[in-house]
Amino acid sequence: MAKFLHLTAFMRPVSLHTGAWRYPGAFADANFNFAHIKSFAQKLEAANFDAFFMADHLAVLNMPVEALKRSHTVTSFEPFTLLSALAAVTERIGLAATASTTYDEPYHIARRFASLDHISNGRAAWNIVTTSNPDAARNFGQDEHAEHGERYKRAREFYDVVTGLWDSFADDAFIRDQESGIFLDPAKMHVLAHKGDELSVRGPLNIARPVQGWPVIVQAGQSEPGRQLAAETAELVFCSPRDLAGGKALYADIKGRMAAVGRDRAHLKILPAAFVVVGETVEDAKAKRSKLDSLVHYDSAIASLSISLGHDASGFDPDGPLPEIPETNASKSGRAQVLKLAADEKLTVRQLAQRYGGYSGLAFVGTPQTIADEMQAWLDEEAADGFTVVFPYLPQGLDDVTQQLVPELQRRGLFRRDYEGSTLREHLGLPRPANRFFS
Amino acid sequence: MAKFLHLTAFMRPVSLHTGAWRYPGAFADANFNFAHIKSFAQKLEAANFDAFFMADHLAVLNMPVEALKRSHTVTSFEPFTLLSALAAVTERIGLAATASTTYDEPYHIARRFASLDHISNGRAAWNIVTTSNPDAARNFGQDEHAEHGERYKRAREFYDVVTGLWDSFADDAFIRDQESGIFLDPAKMHVLAHKGDELSVRGPLNIARPVQGWPVIVQAGQSEPGRQLAAETAELVFCSPRDLAGGKALYADIKGRMAAVGRDRAHLKILPAAFVVVGETVEDAKAKRSKLDSLVHYDSAIASLSISLGHDASGFDPDGPLPEIPETNASKSGRAQVLKLAADEKLTVRQLAQRYGGYSGLAFVGTPQTIADEMQAWLDEEAADGFTVVFPYLPQGLDDVTQQLVPELQRRGLFRRDYEGSTLREHLGLPRPANRFFS
Repeated sequence: MAKFLHLTAFMRPVSLHTGAWRYPGAFADANFNFAHIKSFAQKLEAANFDAFFMADHLAVLNMPVEALKRSHTVTSFEPFTLLSALAAVTERIGLAATASTTYDEPYHIARRFASLDHISNGRAAWNIVTTSNPDAARNFGQDEHAEHGERYKRAREFYDVVTGLWDSFADDAFIRDQESGIFLDPAKMHVLAHKGDELSVRGPLNIARPVQGWPVIVQAGQSEPGRQLAAETAELVFCSPRDLAGGKALYADIKGRMAAVGRDRAHLKILPAAFVVVGETVEDAKAKRSKLDSLVHYDSAIASLSISLGHDASGFDPDGPLPEIPETNASKSGRAQVLKLAADEKLTVRQLAQRYGGYSGLAFVGTPQTIADEMQAWLDEEAADGFTVVFPYLPQGLDDVTQQLVPELQRRGLFRRDYEGSTLREHLGLPRPANRFFS
Repeated sequence: MAKFLHLTAFMRPVSLHTGAWRYPGAFADANFNFAHIKSFAQKLEAANFDAFFMADHLAVLNMPVEALKRSHTVTSFEPFTLLSALAAVTERIGLAATASTTYDEPYHIARRFASLDHISNGRAAWNIVTTSNPDAARNFGQDEHAEHGERYKRAREFYDVVTGLWDSFADDAFIRDQESGIFLDPAKMHVLAHKGDELSVRGPLNIARPVQGWPVIVQAGQSEPGRQLAAETAELVFCSPRDLAGGKALYADIKGRMAAVGRDRAHLKILPAAFVVVGETVEDAKAKRSKLDSLVHYDSAIASLSISLGHDASGFDPDGPLPEIPETNASKSGRAQVLKLAADEKLTVRQLAQRYGGYSGLAFVGTPQTIADEMQAWLDEEAADGFTVVFPYLPQGLDDVTQQLVPELQRRGLFRRDYEGSTLREHLGLPRPANRFFS
């Protein structure tokens, strides 16, 4: 089979752009209105998207009050409640939830994902995060955040425990013979009895083995231990390379690490986040993006630009070009990127600031044809197996993707015209894991 | 308004009777089939039930293998995943989930119930349990279970933290003014900064105040500290008195404790669990129950009877009457109950054992008229504000209640013919709590 793209939708928040909720025609409450989110999920399913992806935070993120009062994501649904509700009103699209290995218990996590997998008939995925946010620590009784390496050590063991709990029952453990009265075969139940450095969990899990064997494992870490954890465990990687070269390097690195631990490269799909703005012409798309960026408040915007520059930009003339800035040791690559962007697009300080305060990651801004060209290049050059689409505003930005970009990808044979399987593993071409305790 | 009954359905497991799944015509997988459970919830909603209630366990309960292999509840859905899925396919019925204060974190609990309350438009309820099961402890890294008083101390503080987190935002904190770009009013966000003996939680919660202000608080503890916690905090009590006298005593005790702490007696509804078997005649209903009891395996049944008697019954003639048993100190009231039941219903040892191995709590077994008479007596004599209905088998036992008993209760003016409000608080006649930080 020829190579084709996998597409997931980044849906918590429903847009990562801080100005999204103010765009003309946008739903101001898109991120926190179940009826809206249900309609988005159903549209994504009608467009055959692989999955609906929810990031998560375990806190209201610490930010200056000027940014806080403009933040459209302070109030959001918790992942399991939202995805379970969506499971009941969709049939095929995958449902990926973020859950923390630092501030939760493996028994709870194993149980909820198994439950979501059963309720959705095999559509659940677990995005493993180690939660690096100190604000979250303070919501869970801790003053200090655990050190990076320690968090990844716990995450690795947590993964072993969760997958071990999912294997508590053989796939055929439940007989339910009304005549004899035998409901399950106790020989097909395994007590994990895990005792490790970080965790002690007896088991068994109080739910049958998930439909998919294990829900799909997702990882987003791009640090050294994050990449290694992904290579060892992940089946889907969500990442944020800034350009094609960066994407190729990350792709080669993670797939190379997989080979080193004896895994099949095809058993992990790498889907960079891509902010997609569709227009009738490239200029039209760029104008939409400029309009969107202009809705970012200057106070929060200039703070973001200062961070990217490693230099306080608040004194610059907002309507002039970016002035010369003395070199510093801090954030060289970030600074170089800002300078390149300012030169390439001839942006004023205000426009630059609003770009950084809005959404500054990888973006495909153009017509369905030019965006499909770019996506195809990433696929052909082994920089991606598809994309995690970030919408600029809702509903229109999402409709533009599902009604214009997806049909163009389908015409090129780059994206499915209909789901072929029923589980997320089937959508992604991933094998169903064997049960480690029962063959 | 005249007094009328509130009815909730005990739905995890969907039947507490161990033989339920074997009854002729019963769904063997009723407890673990989302399509079935969805249809049950929709039928209960069509019958105007106040709420769908989920008990919970954080383990596969420890039991002899002969009982384990016959247990139809070893595999169950996790409460939040199931109730959230049901929230998307129902509109009015309340959704009550059990969550443990011993093995979970207040930030998670506050967030999930708030999320369920928003997704369901104000239908969530939290059944506070302290989890007394040692098997659960071992799934959460602990060898020993926390001592009773210690668990209740944490539960009380946990409740304060959860309700405090629900009050993180004023009801009108979210402005969402697209023109000015102001999404929320930071002056209407409260940082809890709780530091107590058991818990340290900063806040704020990352979700708007629940639709109901706070989800309805449910309590089931009947111990001394359980009753006190209920009197101080609960708005709905699920309990298990064995007869009308026991119901009256418990009702008077809890409502009396409420008065002692300055609460309005009307702001807590007491709904004893009642196993309901409807027949065309009383004899028909009793025959259904006997048939159901006969499906309980003798090995597990005799163990249950032995426990209730405080005496090993395994050597008794199964088909003879209960022999004389020497008095012991253990379980005097349990023993007296067995002897009374054996005499009243002239049961053999096998039948007695199967009653105790099946479901031995309060039961209403008769015609819609006789059952309505009994329910009315409990209401009139201040032994109950309604009932938590336990179904004998599904779907028929549930259909019998919704199609025969409920219309009889409606004819008598004892039960609503349609929901009057939209939230669970409105169904129960409970006030919406004020926000402690914002008036």
